[in-house]
Amino acid sequence: MTSSGPLDGIRVVDFSGYIAGPFCTQLLGDMGADIIKVEPPAGEQWRGQDPFSPGFSKSFVALNRNKRSIVLDLKTDKALSTAKALIASADVMVHNYRPGVAERLGIGYEAVRDLNPRLIYASNSAYGQKGPRALHAGYDLVIQAVSGLIASNPNPDGKAPRRYAGIALIDFTAGQTLAIGVLSALIQRQRTGVGQKIESTLIEAALSLQRQKLVSIEAVDGQNPQKSQGTVRDRMRASAKHMHDLVARELYYRTYETSDGYVTIGCLNVPQRRHFMSIVGLEDPWFENPDALPQTDEEDASRRALTAYAEHEFTKRSTTEWVTAFEACAVPCAPVQMSDDLMFDQQVEAGGYFVDFVMPEFGRVRTMGLGITSDGRPKSHRPPPALGQHTKEILDELAARQAAETSANGVR
Amino acid sequence: MTSSGPLDGIRVVDFSGYIAGPFCTQLLGDMGADIIKVEPPAGEQWRGQDPFSPGFSKSFVALNRNKRSIVLDLKTDKALSTAKALIASADVMVHNYRPGVAERLGIGYEAVRDLNPRLIYASNSAYGQKGPRALHAGYDLVIQAVSGLIASNPNPDGKAPRRYAGIALIDFTAGQTLAIGVLSALIQRQRTGVGQKIESTLIEAALSLQRQKLVSIEAVDGQNPQKSQGTVRDRMRASAKHMHDLVARELYYRTYETSDGYVTIGCLNVPQRRHFMSIVGLEDPWFENPDALPQTDEEDASRRALTAYAEHEFTKRSTTEWVTAFEACAVPCAPVQMSDDLMFDQQVEAGGYFVDFVMPEFGRVRTMGLGITSDGRPKSHRPPPALGQHTKEILDELAARQAAETSANGVR
Repeated sequence: MTSSGPLDGIRVVDFSGYIAGPFCTQLLGDMGADIIKVEPPAGEQWRGQDPFSPGFSKSFVALNRNKRSIVLDLKTDKALSTAKALIASADVMVHNYRPGVAERLGIGYEAVRDLNPRLIYASNSAYGQKGPRALHAGYDLVIQAVSGLIASNPNPDGKAPRRYAGIALIDFTAGQTLAIGVLSALIQRQRTGVGQKIESTLIEAALSLQRQKLVSIEAVDGQNPQKSQGTVRDRMRASAKHMHDLVARELYYRTYETSDGYVTIGCLNVPQRRHFMSIVGLEDPWFENPDALPQTDEEDASRRALTAYAEHEFTKRSTTEWVTAFEACAVPCAPVQMSDDLMFDQQVEAGGYFVDFVMPEFGRVRTMGLGITSDGRPKSHRPPPALGQHTKEILDELAARQAAETSANGVR
Repeated sequence: MTSSGPLDGIRVVDFSGYIAGPFCTQLLGDMGADIIKVEPPAGEQWRGQDPFSPGFSKSFVALNRNKRSIVLDLKTDKALSTAKALIASADVMVHNYRPGVAERLGIGYEAVRDLNPRLIYASNSAYGQKGPRALHAGYDLVIQAVSGLIASNPNPDGKAPRRYAGIALIDFTAGQTLAIGVLSALIQRQRTGVGQKIESTLIEAALSLQRQKLVSIEAVDGQNPQKSQGTVRDRMRASAKHMHDLVARELYYRTYETSDGYVTIGCLNVPQRRHFMSIVGLEDPWFENPDALPQTDEEDASRRALTAYAEHEFTKRSTTEWVTAFEACAVPCAPVQMSDDLMFDQQVEAGGYFVDFVMPEFGRVRTMGLGITSDGRPKSHRPPPALGQHTKEILDELAARQAAETSANGVR
């Protein structure tokens, strides 16, 4: 069973582009599903996002292995009927069009459900079908703003916050959410025999990451929780100052600069904090409850001075020296690594987190794997397809399938 | 079918704590699975994380609805045999112990697989079973450091980077990954009749979010891609300066401060940038390719001056005025909102993203929902359990089940 996948025999027709949709279908393809990537004649948008060769970018390579590509210009009747035949032959359809676009193209749920009652119709959009922003474009950065993610990371000076690392974390979260929706619908179908329409959204993905903050409890927050007063500008300034004050007293759960880099410490209990104090060489009278607010200005000044002292001590030794010392006492810590170091990290190598495959034109490719370890997973991977690489193959399969159905129906 | 869920009849025994595991099992419970949360006598750790009442914190409430709680002290033989009986009766077992701990407790995979060949044994750890860091504690912040996430968000001054917003984004990503592993194993079991062991890790979740950066291609990066030279400290300083220079020229994909808050703009194409220029009232000669590097010092100076001009213009009008003007031309934009505003956001209300339930002692509770819209989803929710609230109920079920099996086996 080791070379087969949990989704063997599952056929997915994928009209999506950018990150969330392609990430979702790559997860399904990594687990053995047959992913048919339907692309417009110009190719999916991310093929051209900083390409290293025409039609291939690293972003595209990272999100589109284990798929086959067919080119269809959905504005032509012939291509549309081919698309519908593919949808009729599939278990799952995925798209990330804005609300109304799939309907205009002729592949909305109402238009295709009768072709295939077992179809799971999965889509991701910015805000879903309802509400004042339903028709707005929702790029990751815009959703980070409207969802509170940007504001939760204020600049120390209270000026306009920068985005987080250019990492589209909302898109990735939404892609996983959509995959969870598809897989659970496949499980439900085995009981009911029918498919269904499922949707995920970028805004819900962004709120999901903040779910611990987004809780209101009648007895705690009052009968009707009140909206905060004041302008966002003033509240952001206050939040920035508050966070700055916390950081100025933070000794045990933070990142320090060393003589050659940075080390991150995560002391969450008293024994760990005792080890921290002896290794750094300081006495913190408040180590048993470091998150408590200072009781006096003197205490506040002393605690800020302690933090400044620790910051100065850390610059005297190298990251490796600090990590060695803390690890000897099992104090949770790690060197701050640059992401391009990860391709060479011993733990990454030993853990087998990456997957390798060969792209005929470009040689060996190494990229991040599925992230799920199991015996029952495919061990080999199909490289990302060239635009339309499998158009003929897929059309031939479709013709053969239709011929078989025709004869099965006794038509001569 | 609207009141039943895709996972009706699936029984999950959950030994996990903190975020990743409980988030995974809440996703399964939201979709109809019966989640039995096994807690130590002191309760799961996050019950006491800033509690609003003994045994209940907002973090716990946000991650533990649709579960039943049973208290078992696994260090006693009686509790261990009860735990094994629960595992034998379940479809899925979830834990997030460090490598070796489940084995020491007597509920490692080898110890329980024979009790239940159909069992899906799912676990999440920091680094997995192999490698130099396999036994290290892996708090979210520590994994952010070692995985490159912290370094990808450098401070403008190159000083030690701060963590991102205290949002445990790696834990949430890992929780979704584990759920994807469980659901796909359930699908595979319907074909093979047997369960399997699956694992997710925090480090892979962190790398997954950066997968677009973590790509090496032989023909592009050379036969043997080279590790970057220089100290992390120097590379972080260089990265911070590079990002600072980019931001100093960034007009179209960023956040601006307004007279009363902040507005985020996401112009990704030429027509959007034309609208932006006319609304802000500036002429950018480089608007067709704004990401190109300046060719001369004069060009660099002019472009920085343009950005400074735009930043000044934005402070002259309110966030609402700017959003209204940009939306009129369909320029992707959004007001920066504070996360506590989201409980009152019209789009959030109209989209129905939150779920409500009643906790007898605390009244109405509103918290973030599943994030998947579908007809085939449960509409009502079970509130988070008090510690051990269902111990007797679950033990009685187990006794009844065992009695039924005994008589079915013809034992008298």
